[in-house]
This record gives sequence, C-alpha cells and structure tokens, in this order.
Amino acid sequence: MHENDHLKMPGALLSKKGSRRDFLRNTAVTALAGGALAACSIDESAAQTLKANEMDHSGGTMAPNPAPITPAAAADAMDRMHEAGIKSFPAKTAGKGNQLMQPRMDGAVKVYELTARKLRWETAPGQTVEGWAYNDQIPGPQIRVREGDRVRLVLKNELPESTAVHFHGVELPNAQDGVPFITQPPIKSGQTFTYEFTAPNPGSHMYHSHHNAATQVGLGMLGAFIIEPKNPLPIEKADIDYVLVINDGMHGYTFNGKSFPATEPIVAKLGQKVRIRFMNEGMMIHPMHLHGMHMTVIAKDGWNTPAPWKCDTLNVAPGERYDVIVNCNNPGTWAFHCHILPHAESDHGMFGMVTALIVK
Amino acid sequence: MHENDHLKMPGALLSKKGSRRDFLRNTAVTALAGGALAACSIDESAAQTLKANEMDHSGGTMAPNPAPITPAAAADAMDRMHEAGIKSFPAKTAGKGNQLMQPRMDGAVKVYELTARKLRWETAPGQTVEGWAYNDQIPGPQIRVREGDRVRLVLKNELPESTAVHFHGVELPNAQDGVPFITQPPIKSGQTFTYEFTAPNPGSHMYHSHHNAATQVGLGMLGAFIIEPKNPLPIEKADIDYVLVINDGMHGYTFNGKSFPATEPIVAKLGQKVRIRFMNEGMMIHPMHLHGMHMTVIAKDGWNTPAPWKCDTLNVAPGERYDVIVNCNNPGTWAFHCHILPHAESDHGMFGMVTALIVK
Amino acid sequence: MHENDHLKMPGALLSKKGSRRDFLRNTAVTALAGGALAACSIDESAAQTLKANEMDHSGGTMAPNPAPITPAAAADAMDRMHEAGIKSFPAKTAGKGNQLMQPRMDGAVKVYELTARKLRWETAPGQTVEGWAYNDQIPGPQIRVREGDRVRLVLKNELPESTAVHFHGVELPNAQDGVPFITQPPIKSGQTFTYEFTAPNPGSHMYHSHHNAATQVGLGMLGAFIIEPKNPLPIEKADIDYVLVINDGMHGYTFNGKSFPATEPIVAKLGQKVRIRFMNEGMMIHPMHLHGMHMTVIAKDGWNTPAPWKCDTLNVAPGERYDVIVNCNNPGTWAFHCHILPHAESDHGMFGMVTALIVK
Repeated sequence: MHENDHLKMPGALLSKKGSRRDFLRNTAVTALAGGALAACSIDESAAQTLKANEMDHSGGTMAPNPAPITPAAAADAMDRMHEAGIKSFPAKTAGKGNQLMQPRMDGAVKVYELTARKLRWETAPGQTVEGWAYNDQIPGPQIRVREGDRVRLVLKNELPESTAVHFHGVELPNAQDGVPFITQPPIKSGQTFTYEFTAPNPGSHMYHSHHNAATQVGLGMLGAFIIEPKNPLPIEKADIDYVLVINDGMHGYTFNGKSFPATEPIVAKLGQKVRIRFMNEGMMIHPMHLHGMHMTVIAKDGWNTPAPWKCDTLNVAPGERYDVIVNCNNPGTWAFHCHILPHAESDHGMFGMVTALIVK
Repeated sequence: MHENDHLKMPGALLSKKGSRRDFLRNTAVTALAGGALAACSIDESAAQTLKANEMDHSGGTMAPNPAPITPAAAADAMDRMHEAGIKSFPAKTAGKGNQLMQPRMDGAVKVYELTARKLRWETAPGQTVEGWAYNDQIPGPQIRVREGDRVRLVLKNELPESTAVHFHGVELPNAQDGVPFITQPPIKSGQTFTYEFTAPNPGSHMYHSHHNAATQVGLGMLGAFIIEPKNPLPIEKADIDYVLVINDGMHGYTFNGKSFPATEPIVAKLGQKVRIRFMNEGMMIHPMHLHGMHMTVIAKDGWNTPAPWKCDTLNVAPGERYDVIVNCNNPGTWAFHCHILPHAESDHGMFGMVTALIVK
Repeated sequence: MHENDHLKMPGALLSKKGSRRDFLRNTAVTALAGGALAACSIDESAAQTLKANEMDHSGGTMAPNPAPITPAAAADAMDRMHEAGIKSFPAKTAGKGNQLMQPRMDGAVKVYELTARKLRWETAPGQTVEGWAYNDQIPGPQIRVREGDRVRLVLKNELPESTAVHFHGVELPNAQDGVPFITQPPIKSGQTFTYEFTAPNPGSHMYHSHHNAATQVGLGMLGAFIIEPKNPLPIEKADIDYVLVINDGMHGYTFNGKSFPATEPIVAKLGQKVRIRFMNEGMMIHPMHLHGMHMTVIAKDGWNTPAPWKCDTLNVAPGERYDVIVNCNNPGTWAFHCHILPHAESDHGMFGMVTALIVK
C-alpha cells in the first residue's frame, strides 16, 4: 500500500514526526447525526487530554480526572489530531467509486452491464460500512455517453430485495423511467432488467434506485450519468472534468463515497480550467466552499445557465446538479469543503466533507 | 365513494389482485421526524415479514421471530406495500383545500369572508389530525385577484386564541400587514377584523397567520394569494395554472394539505403548458423533482426572473414561491416529489410529498 | 441605561401598561434545537395559564391544574407575552458586535490588531452565554478596506486553544489562507500571528476561525470583511450600508450576535436606498423575509449578479453572502425575519431571528 506522494499536502510547515500509522491510531470520527459511524480507535492519552479540556457548553458530565492536565497540553493534543488527519491526506482505503466505465459495443449500441449487490465499503481508514453497490463501487461506475447515442443498461439484481434504476434528469420515454409500479415492475432479487434508449438532453445527470430509495440510495445505489452535448458551448471547455458526488446517508458525510482524509484531491496545473460537476445524492443541503478561487456556475441540472454567475460557496440541495468552472490561477493547496462546519470538522480535526484543490 | 378512474395510474404492469381496501389494511405511514403522525393499522403479516428482513443498520433490537421467513418473502411483502400505495393513488379523503374562492362583490370591492376555526383534517386515508383552518380548508381557499382590484378580506376568529392575517409578499400599506402589536392589535377569539387594500405587485403570494405562527401555520392557517398581472408576459401563458402548497408541520409532509396517496395529480394533455406555483409554508427546504420533463423558472416570489432558467429539481425554501412552466411534451405518468427521499418514501412505500404529472 | 426612543415600535395600537421590567419578568426564550439557551424566568401566572391551554398535539402530559383557567384568559396571557416582547424592542443588552474598526496606519499599510479571547456575551436581556470573540465583540469588528489596499491583520491568541483566521471569499496568496497544517501552523495560545496582503476581489466577505471551527465559529470567532470596489456599479449606490450576520450556533438564533428583542432595527427615511449584506455564519439555511418591500439581489459571495433579481424571501445558506438593495418606498415598521418560523416565534412571542426595517 504505497502513498500518492505527489498528492501530499505541502509539508514545509508541518512537523514530520507523525506517520500514517500514527494517524490511524490518533484519528477519531465524531458520530454523525443520522449516520451510523462508530468511532474508530484513538490515541487514548490525546483523547483523555482533550476530554479534560472540554468546555462548559459540552453538556456532558465530566469524567473524574485523576492527573491534572494543563490547558496547553490539551490544546497541543487537539492540534496533533488535526495535524495527523491532514498529513495523512489523501489516505488510502480499499475500493474506489465513480470510475469511468467503458461500454461493450453491440453494433451501434453502448451496453453497460451493472450488477447490484451488497459489499463492505471503506469510507475512511478503518471505517467500514455495509454498502449496496453497482459493480462493487460507491458511487457506481461513471457512465458517460454522447447526446444521440443508443444506450443499453442491463441491471442484474443480486440484492435481497427488489430494485429499479431511475435516470435522474434524463428525459426518457416513460417506460424507461425506472419507477416500480408506475413505469415498470420491480426488478426482483435474482432478476435482470434491460433499459434501452437514445441519449436525450445533455448534461450532468444521475442514475439511482427508485425503490425503497431512502434506504437503497443511502447505502450506495447511485452514480453519475453524463450526456455530453453534440455542440458544447465555448464556456464548457475545460482541461479537467471532475465529478463530485455528495452524500450524507448511512455512510456518513462523503465525497464520491469517501470521507476525509480518504477523499480524493483535485489536482490541476496553474492556468488550467477545471470543470466540477456537483451532484447531491443525500438528504441535506451542502453549501460547497472553495478557498482561493471562485467558481463560475455554467449549468444547473444539466441545463446551461442563461447568465453564468460566480460564487465561492455553492448551495447544492438533494437531487440538484451544478456544473462550475474554476480558473486555476492561484497556486497552492486549497481547502474545499461543505460549509456546514459540523459536516467537515470536529475537535478531533477535519473529517467527512473535506477535500482539496491543488494548483501546482 | 367512487374512484376518479381517468386519474388512475397505468395498470398494465400491475397485478390487479390488490383492492383499495387491501391498501388501507396494508399501508403504514412512517412516523415523521418532527411530525405527529401515528401509524395507521397495517397488515400484520406483511409488516412482520418486513421486520424479519430488517438490516443490520436499522439499529433496532430484533424481535424474536417464531417462524422463519425467507428473504424473498420479505421482499415480496415490501413490494406489495409499495404496489398497494401506488395503485390507490389518487386516494379519496374527506376535505379538499386550496379551492378557488369566488368573492362577493360590494360595489367594485371583491369581498372575501374567512372564518378561522378548528377541524379534523384527513391528510391520507385514515390519517386524521387536528387542523386550524380558514373556511374549513387546508390550505385555505385560493384567493385570486387582479392587479389594481379593490380587495376586502374579513376574518372571523373562532379559534380559542388570537390570530392575524399576513399577506406574504404583497406590498401593502403598513396597517394592512397583519403583524399583531406592530401593525394591528391581535384579533381575539370571537372578534372579526377587516383588511382592505388595492392589489399591488402581481405574482404568487400567500396569506397566513402571523401570530403564534410556528403553531398556527403548522396547523393549517395558510393559503395562496395570487395577484394576476394586468399585462402578463408571453412566457406566462399556460393551459393549466396549478398551485402547489408544500408543508411539513404537524400534519406531516403534505402537498395542498394531503399526503400521498391522497395527493392530487396534475393532469395535462400532450402539448399543453402547465404553470406550477410552488409555495413553501413549511419549516424545511423541499427540492421538488419532476421526472420526464424539465421546468422553466419564470418567477421568484412573484417577481419575473430576468433570465428564465431550466431545472428538474427546484429547491424551495420556507416562505419562497417559484413559478415554473412545464411543456408537456412527454406522454406518461411521471413521478413528481420532494427529493429529500425520507420525505417521500419509506420501506413501506411512497408517502408524504409525492404526486404525479400525468400527460395523456 | 436609557432607551433609543426614536427606534421604538409604533405604540398607538398597544396598551401602555407593560414596562421593560415587566417584559424581563414575562419573557421566556424557548429552548432552541441545537442551542444551549436556558429559559429565563417568566411570569409564573402567565406561563401557568398558557400551559393550561396547551393543545392535544403538544405530546406532553398535562400537569394537574388546581384552578380552572378559561381559554380566553390563556389566550390573553399569550398575547401579553407577545406584546411585551415587541414593546421592548430594541431591548438594551451589554456589548455590541460588528462595530466598524478604524485601522492604524503603518505607512500605507492598514493595520488591524485583533485579540481573541473568551468573554460573557448577552444575546438578549438576561441571556448571557460563553463567547469566544475578536476584540470582545460578536460578530468581531467590521473590517472595511478598499480594493488594492495593503492590509495587515495581527491576531493575538488569548484563547486556551490554537486558532487561525481564514478570510472567507478573499482570493489571497496561499500562505495567507489561514488553514492550520495546510497553509500555516496553528496559532497557539499566547502566540501572535500576522497576515498581510493586498486586498483583491471586492465584495462582502467574512473572516473567521478555521481551526476547530465548528466550535470556535459557533462561539463567536467571526466577522465581516468587506472590500469596497475601486469602481462601484451604479446599482450599488445606497444611502445606508448595513451588514447582517446570521448565526445559529451555541448562542441561539442571532442577527449580529443578538436575539430579538435585542436585535437592531434598520432605520431609513422614505425614499432612501438600503444595501443589506447578508452573511450566514451558522449551520442552517435561513430564508430571510422582508415585509412591505422587496429586495433586489445585486451580488452573491461578493460577485455582482449578471442579472439582478427580485425577491421578498432570500434563502441564505451557511458560508453564503448576498447583497441586496431595498428601495424604502413604503413607510412603517416592517417585520424582517427568518421564515423558518421556529427560528423566529414561539407561543411566548417573537424571539431569535427577528428585527425590523423602519421607514420613516
């Protein structure tokens, strides 16, 4: 398990004494409201120290504190946990979602074969959860077709319950819309179902379960479905095209299925343009904040914005997609996170919905 | 109690063995966070089966399970509950809110007489809650006037506490603004109060209580107040003009005072244009997602958008109104729901903030 | 402690028997979800009366009620509490945040010296909470510079733990971005750290802690950082320029660090233009609703909107800033509040996120 050294945070300011192994011992993930994460093991002494420094507003009863700990030592312990998290970024975990899928060609038809089944999914080092996934990825494989392509999606259901695939944002004939008992029968466990259509309105769309969906989507049954336009606008031209799926279900606060420090940084060269396609598959809003540079919003739900507008904090609601362009004109490693702060940081350091845009 | 057969979901794919009576036995509404809904009676065996299939992440202790149930049987039981809900749509309930109110004319003045009082309100079959209502409707009667009309609204308060009517979004003289102790005295129980004004800025507005409002609005003291413009824009022309009031108070997740399957579908002919006026009277955002076709946003809070924009998921925050146009160019029955999935579906099937746009 | 009489609510409709002292006895602040406010003392008889009138949906068990109280008496008691709150507005409290700070000049450099330390902060009369503050103000001092200015900010950390200052929205060189372990070491307790830069992109920005930020920002480590443009647009011209920082952390629901009735009204003369700069430093959305007049949105996150748009309810998400212009063409005292009603009113009256725009 080797490290992506070129992606490491700039370490000049950081003490080098912490190793990744230290981080795994030091880190703790705060239990998320509505999530199901258990705290992983932490450095007992640091946690003890931190606890001793807890403020009046914590509402908890104070544990008896056998040895006096100075506020300075407690603050240092907190800093060490913050440092360890950041130094380990991007941390390795098993499994990678949102991988671009190559179709099998059946004549002129692009065929995507997906299998839905359970797995164990590692969201952050040592954090493993039950997942329901397409092709063992969370998010499922990234599907990219071109406007006018003939597309066939074959779903094999190996889950213990029925499912169906809805193509969120794609204006399909009714029979392909993927809503059990409205447009099709449920795809029962063991069954295979085939969707086929000509790719209509271009843009950043999604595919996800539309059966028992509050549970199934929360467990991972979702992915990006992108239809590239025949005639892209000049403003769409970008050097890097990055899909960022936001989720907040049973897996905690994630970007592309991973929580900080296991999230993936976006890496660009100075002067490049990055297109980011935000997709919210969760149950809460997530106002995404980029440091150092602004974002120009060029599309909403796959539709070009009539007048592109700029921001540094983009509020993305469940089901929404936004396409933005970032002109990478400011070198450095820039924090990039949800600005609902409890989704991104605790007194144990950054976690959840945090990544970085690295401009070299 | 006869059915609106022309509004039934297409049944070709559905088994016909379930009747509406079955649905009433089978259905259960999950307790809503922050709501006050009691589960209605359910088919014991189906629920038992479902329970036996609950996953590890449910967090609940498992009930002792006297008879082994196969996962397939549990999945089938879940599917039956989903099917029964959809087949019963649109389900009949007592009471209908948001009915267009005809004014009494007093010379050139349009007079609307409202009485505020308690009632029992059926939000879904068998779900009856305490409501506080204008003219026994939740939402209250839909008031539509024309820019420049002289309007008189006479409120008789038969509630056990004081109230007042605020015309949300309407730019009135201060004395007509309806905020007790700021612009008027409270209207005490038993009293009658008269508002009178010339209809100013056109658009999709609302009227609701502005006294003890977190409670009174949550219980139903709200309605649509629409001022039609003297000079409508070409983009406003529509064949169907539909008001959709969203709420999430003590009555659960509702559209026009009803929860799925008792919500009302929007029915249009192929080629027609539908204008939908979203109005959020709740306490949470609701990103409204339409399947099959996009929405063009033409107004926000009654003000024309300078550059109409397209979307399929429209995030509507409390107090906001959005007017959209849907070109009904895609035939079929299309799900139309809040995309915060726990507001729309549980493992017992769809509920709450779900309806359909039916294009014939 | 004298009253700002010219800011008093119009009292013609109000009975004059309540004094501010009565209000302090009568008022109670409902415990906020996620907040840490304790109810302050209330008029026992009024509260008792109110309790006796509680409705079925309250879910609580009814206390034995020794003396019968009529519904009318209970309703009157509720009205008195509502009236007392409004009559006391704007209520005096100790401490005022968001005061415009004059820099010390070091040659051509504008120098802002900030000290971070704990204090006790009064959010509403009698409501005192622990605060962590810049220069003993919550929000911290308002910093206004001009595009192209050389700016130095010197932070002395007298808190018991480390901190750092992030300039939210300001496109600075990476080393000035204020994120410990990414762009700088943490500023430890007792240390002083200096930021220095040339003011880049103009607009309504913020400065706040980016270390243990969910806690530190919630406790008050935040302020407005405004960069005025060299070449303002005509639409930006305003007679009054008002900063409104929204927060919902451990201090409850606040505008500029205060809860109603201690919030500050905006006072304008008929015909004046008011620019309001909304800044959300909290963890929730707040759809801000202005009565009587609309708002024209001219900037988002400091960037001019390509097509200004109108609204009366503006949804502001955490980290977002919006600049709006209000044409004060409608005389009177206008309620101005978050439209998530439980953030603004309880059965004890208005509280939290409520203020007024007074047009004389």
